[in-house]
Amino acid sequence: MKSNAGPGEEARVRVDLGARSYDILIGPGRIAEAGAQIAQRLPDAQVAIITDETVAGLHLDTLGESLSAAGIKAVPIILPAGERTKSFEHLMQACDAVLDARLERGDAVVALGGGVIGDLTGFVAGIVRRGMHYVQVPTSLLAQVDSSVGGKTGINTGHGKNLVGVFHQPELVLADTDVLDTLSEREFRAGYAEVAKYGLIDRPEFFAWLEDNWREVFSGGAARVEAIATSCQAKADVVAADERESGHRALLNLGHTFGHALEAATGYDSRRLVHGEGVAIGVVLAHEFSARMNHASPDDARRVAEHLRAVGLPTSIHDIDGELPPPDILMEHIAQDKKVKRGKLTFILTRGIGQSFIADDVPQSEVLGFLKEKYTQ
Amino acid sequence: MKSNAGPGEEARVRVDLGARSYDILIGPGRIAEAGAQIAQRLPDAQVAIITDETVAGLHLDTLGESLSAAGIKAVPIILPAGERTKSFEHLMQACDAVLDARLERGDAVVALGGGVIGDLTGFVAGIVRRGMHYVQVPTSLLAQVDSSVGGKTGINTGHGKNLVGVFHQPELVLADTDVLDTLSEREFRAGYAEVAKYGLIDRPEFFAWLEDNWREVFSGGAARVEAIATSCQAKADVVAADERESGHRALLNLGHTFGHALEAATGYDSRRLVHGEGVAIGVVLAHEFSARMNHASPDDARRVAEHLRAVGLPTSIHDIDGELPPPDILMEHIAQDKKVKRGKLTFILTRGIGQSFIADDVPQSEVLGFLKEKYTQ
Repeated sequence: MKSNAGPGEEARVRVDLGARSYDILIGPGRIAEAGAQIAQRLPDAQVAIITDETVAGLHLDTLGESLSAAGIKAVPIILPAGERTKSFEHLMQACDAVLDARLERGDAVVALGGGVIGDLTGFVAGIVRRGMHYVQVPTSLLAQVDSSVGGKTGINTGHGKNLVGVFHQPELVLADTDVLDTLSEREFRAGYAEVAKYGLIDRPEFFAWLEDNWREVFSGGAARVEAIATSCQAKADVVAADERESGHRALLNLGHTFGHALEAATGYDSRRLVHGEGVAIGVVLAHEFSARMNHASPDDARRVAEHLRAVGLPTSIHDIDGELPPPDILMEHIAQDKKVKRGKLTFILTRGIGQSFIADDVPQSEVLGFLKEKYTQ
Repeated sequence: MKSNAGPGEEARVRVDLGARSYDILIGPGRIAEAGAQIAQRLPDAQVAIITDETVAGLHLDTLGESLSAAGIKAVPIILPAGERTKSFEHLMQACDAVLDARLERGDAVVALGGGVIGDLTGFVAGIVRRGMHYVQVPTSLLAQVDSSVGGKTGINTGHGKNLVGVFHQPELVLADTDVLDTLSEREFRAGYAEVAKYGLIDRPEFFAWLEDNWREVFSGGAARVEAIATSCQAKADVVAADERESGHRALLNLGHTFGHALEAATGYDSRRLVHGEGVAIGVVLAHEFSARMNHASPDDARRVAEHLRAVGLPTSIHDIDGELPPPDILMEHIAQDKKVKRGKLTFILTRGIGQSFIADDVPQSEVLGFLKEKYTQ
């Protein structure tokens, strides 16, 4: 992909959290601005840059030069690429490296990478010296529109994903839309599933706009900046209303209960399914299940599937390569993800495009019946 | 020691932190009340009890029976005793054990033990599922008057003590004054150094009361409850004013800069020096250094030393068994503990008993000169 964005096409989204408020700056060339932006917000701070081997090769020089030009001393900490880096082992390694660099509480850690690096780095910043500043420089579409915003940080354990972490908000998010040109089509599409999700949660006009403009979002330029800014604004609104997920924030999980179960069922094998693809299938299933429960029209589910299919995303469990475990095993993954209370599950359902809601009384038996149907359709 | 406290002698201190406010309940028999108190504050919660091998043998049955009587399901997690348990390794082990117990975000972790168990458990509760409830049941005097109150949690790394952790406030602190009868005289005295410290920070009348009543505090009963309650109130006031140590809270470090340096200089060998003993020598040195800097009268330093000596605490570097490294090595430990800016240190000094203040411009050369004098006196 090639970005056609000019320098005038940029956006700023404010995440409104009182004393912990911060800006998301979106547009081309944002990495080259990092030094000036950080120096303005954190004068006198030194930084450590946590990144992975792949991203370091692509963008570390640009970031390093920008920091150096602003007089900011920076130490790079380069970890292996991939989901396995979200572990206690690498958390410990990164904390030690930040302490080796002699950073103090007023200094900052910069996350340069996708969701894995962002989640791990935020956690490191949340616990070294009981909380340091941090800056997110997300380099995947998924990280730009989702994981870099909102302060959820963490690692995986043998018990599951993101089970250990903290809520810790960054000082600044720099979403450089040029770097997305270094992603594969498949990676970009996977991030796009989360973009579409924001329309489906509560912005029907945004979903309609994406149906008309998705090709421009993929090819770069002003439409891409606009899609990312709208997604960040959607997430910022939800986070501002419910920072610690005591209620409303759960809407962001639209499509994720089915999606997580499918990721688990495929053994987190990224050759078969990546997170965004699981979400794409998951949002279609959430709309179909809502129709089955008489909350929404089957036409809405068809419209969602049609758009995601046009983009090139999988929309059905049959789109996944290889065998899936039987429906009751998938049901077990769902029950592990959610707390089951007396046979009832909490699920994000919808009354139509952009009309999602939290249902806390979904019978487990209905979900299993639905899954059995999907396997045979 | 034998406690003479009757059931009528109890106290409640409120830590005032808005939505994160909580009670410290002080008095005899508090562990036996734990079940009822937790059930009242966290209905439907299950718990995991994190404790160490020594404390488990003394108090785990009492706590377990109390929880069981209140209908609370509890899983014990028993770790080795000692400072080495405040490590990444045991943090990971404890997080896994809490997840093994299938606890959810609404459930709670209970810390049953001294400062090591309290700091580690608070950290576990702060990060499992991005924050669970926790309850402190401190079993040492040091933990009851200091580490269990205020939400500082953490572990040690190769770079130093408490360098990784979070601020996470408990739901409740239960300071059972009976359990202090199971401490050795030396352990009780070490905790007493922190009690006296609160008088020296900003409560001169409390220090004078301790001079008259310390024997009753040691022997138990109403005076012990009162000393612990006043100490907790003192700490609660400071924490309420400055939860995350951006300024005022640093006063709690009176005596700790010298004390930490002495702990480091003796290789954290508890046969030579425990934390509270380091603090005892440290507060005397802080008063002597304040006199040298013409902030306070030498009479105040003599009065502090006299009281702590009467109690049986060390008050001079010459009271430490074995050889100490030379003054410049001690000075290096101090400089590592504090950030040195252009040869100046931040120190807690005093204008007299109960009149401590934060000095951020203490010349390193003056501290070194003072230490050289103390070595030869």
